[in-house]
Amino acid sequence: MEDGEQGEGEGEGEWASKAWAHLSSVRSLSPLIQCITNFVSMDLTANTLLSAGASPAMLHSSTESPDFTPQVHALYINVGTLSDAWLPAMIAAAELATKFNKPWILDPVAAAASRFRLKACLDLISLKPSVIRGNASEIIALADASFGSSTKGVDSSHDSTDAVEAAKSLASSSGAVVAVSGAVDFITDGNRVLGARNGVPMMQKITATGCAVTALIAAFVAIDPSHALEATASALAVFGVAGEIGMEMARGPASLRMHLIDSLHGLDQTAVISRVKISAL
Amino acid sequence: MEDGEQGEGEGEGEWASKAWAHLSSVRSLSPLIQCITNFVSMDLTANTLLSAGASPAMLHSSTESPDFTPQVHALYINVGTLSDAWLPAMIAAAELATKFNKPWILDPVAAAASRFRLKACLDLISLKPSVIRGNASEIIALADASFGSSTKGVDSSHDSTDAVEAAKSLASSSGAVVAVSGAVDFITDGNRVLGARNGVPMMQKITATGCAVTALIAAFVAIDPSHALEATASALAVFGVAGEIGMEMARGPASLRMHLIDSLHGLDQTAVISRVKISAL
Amino acid sequence: MEDGEQGEGEGEGEWASKAWAHLSSVRSLSPLIQCITNFVSMDLTANTLLSAGASPAMLHSSTESPDFTPQVHALYINVGTLSDAWLPAMIAAAELATKFNKPWILDPVAAAASRFRLKACLDLISLKPSVIRGNASEIIALADASFGSSTKGVDSSHDSTDAVEAAKSLASSSGAVVAVSGAVDFITDGNRVLGARNGVPMMQKITATGCAVTALIAAFVAIDPSHALEATASALAVFGVAGEIGMEMARGPASLRMHLIDSLHGLDQTAVISRVKISAL
Repeated sequence: MEDGEQGEGEGEGEWASKAWAHLSSVRSLSPLIQCITNFVSMDLTANTLLSAGASPAMLHSSTESPDFTPQVHALYINVGTLSDAWLPAMIAAAELATKFNKPWILDPVAAAASRFRLKACLDLISLKPSVIRGNASEIIALADASFGSSTKGVDSSHDSTDAVEAAKSLASSSGAVVAVSGAVDFITDGNRVLGARNGVPMMQKITATGCAVTALIAAFVAIDPSHALEATASALAVFGVAGEIGMEMARGPASLRMHLIDSLHGLDQTAVISRVKISAL
Repeated sequence: MEDGEQGEGEGEGEWASKAWAHLSSVRSLSPLIQCITNFVSMDLTANTLLSAGASPAMLHSSTESPDFTPQVHALYINVGTLSDAWLPAMIAAAELATKFNKPWILDPVAAAASRFRLKACLDLISLKPSVIRGNASEIIALADASFGSSTKGVDSSHDSTDAVEAAKSLASSSGAVVAVSGAVDFITDGNRVLGARNGVPMMQKITATGCAVTALIAAFVAIDPSHALEATASALAVFGVAGEIGMEMARGPASLRMHLIDSLHGLDQTAVISRVKISAL
Repeated sequence: MEDGEQGEGEGEGEWASKAWAHLSSVRSLSPLIQCITNFVSMDLTANTLLSAGASPAMLHSSTESPDFTPQVHALYINVGTLSDAWLPAMIAAAELATKFNKPWILDPVAAAASRFRLKACLDLISLKPSVIRGNASEIIALADASFGSSTKGVDSSHDSTDAVEAAKSLASSSGAVVAVSGAVDFITDGNRVLGARNGVPMMQKITATGCAVTALIAAFVAIDPSHALEATASALAVFGVAGEIGMEMARGPASLRMHLIDSLHGLDQTAVISRVKISAL
């Protein structure tokens, strides 16, 4: 592994610089991100993208995507409130993104909640997302491609460490970078594995933080599509840093949510460089 | 009335202990609550459940419910942004909940806003919800089952006191516990009537607080389904206490919303025991 | 121009008094506003209306509008997350509003994002909205009625000054008051042009502030339908003032959002009179 030869501290410094460079590019280029996401997360997702400097567009209709998707810098698809009515629009947009060589990112929320949902996720994965981000249960379910696992709703009931092998397997079979969120976030392209160790536990008590960080991944990959692994790690770490800073002012999950977004908007180089904890594993 | 024999102070102390026990159970058991709710309230509803320790899942598709509803601990249905497209999914999920012996809770938002909506609510009520919670206008409209009342949108134009008789009537005819929100919340199973006197007026200036507390009722009933009357009163009082504590820090409705959720997350035994005001009427 | 004869300072004082009168009327009359708006903005829109004293009702189904729309004081339509499924309901509600002589207000979000959307906006405009509010790109696109402009998503890529001529043209052809949001907001009925210079740039980093202020316009026009030009300017200025006061306490976009809503709820006569900056141009 290329990065394994570096000392860990030195490696982390380089990763942190890279994360800062990614965030700076998002701020200066303001990539346009089409979001087809669930109803619960739309507000937080749009505000996360705006506070990071990106430009969100919540357009989901398959009637519009042929005109709109070719103009965006990346597409974000999240199946949280999936329905028969929305799935064809997700598939149509994903096909357009692939056709027009735009990166697209998948959040397979609660992938194993139903056979319909699992099949929908697998169908979407066959359309070549650049990145798939989920929690351990979701990634394991997708890797197993087996209905009936013990996944409990949209929260993770597995530790993210358990899911590293599943993530590598899913990455290899799909061609996507796969990220597993947890106490440590793991990011893999099937060969390399990165770990990002930012964030605070209370972020799990805010609905849609997972959805929001996946949208942020879309923005970071949009400005560095040929390094999706690194951009994904940067986005996860930057969002986690915003959460850490936000936690210093928070009294509970709702104030954390507010301070997290404020912090993401205000992040400076010093904070990013000193706090980002990414390393090659 | 059994509780009528107790001194009021003593009675309140017992109710407060019960409310604390309910909240503690929600925190330790983290019941999984399927929410089919309106678009406006999804964010606050999910965050309310998370901050109370429950696990929300916003899955609404009738394609998914056959796989998912049997796995949940309770189902919450809210007709706020009702449409022809969503009603069949609500009915399908309610039928599954009843079939699999899961408690399900109905929020009949703006029940009298249209004939379609009133009929939809009555159809849902025929599927045996455990609890129905609404404001006075909604409960009166449902009890009257008459279109054309003076209900004004989603806000209450009746005092909740007016609705006690309507609530008792609706409870008796439906078999559900019926709760009427207002300056005093009334909860009845048709025979017993409880009053909960927590909360602050400004909570009505925050959209979806009614929806959110109904979701909280679902979580409380999920962990004590054989005492739906008591669990409902506990949830209403606990949410009100969180609002009271939040109000001490609030400058307006938006900061109240934040502090309410923070407070719900942080509620300790002392606050609950000293503040919960439930009594048998 | 009538107002041009007045000294600018004096004129602003009169406009500020008018804005305070409008806000006071909204608070005392609590107009019922039916909102058919996008998923992203529903929460902020409802909370904006509530904090201003109006009564929001998010009812969108064409099955319900025949019963409900005749009861409301104004209708607000926003095409942000447009779809084939929702457009007929928007059209049906707009037709009902016109039939029952209720003012209705259009927010043509991202009007040029697709041919479908542009045509939908033009179809809606043919149904005689009282007010159309958009950013410069949206208003220019509608005035040009030409697909393929350089509009970038939902954010404005034109300065609002550029759009004044387009706004006048659109106002004349449609019969609507047209408002263009920007560093200065311009409001025109095709003949008169008002400028409102309140607000802070960071409001653009909060999703759905444009949607929310359009809903506020609906509430203001609801209580003064025969002066839609003035009511629109008042709403834009009052929302901007709330943002200015909110900005004094904000650390970033998320806390600005909270403080803005709190401030809108708490606005007093002194703040409105001293801060509102409307003038005839």
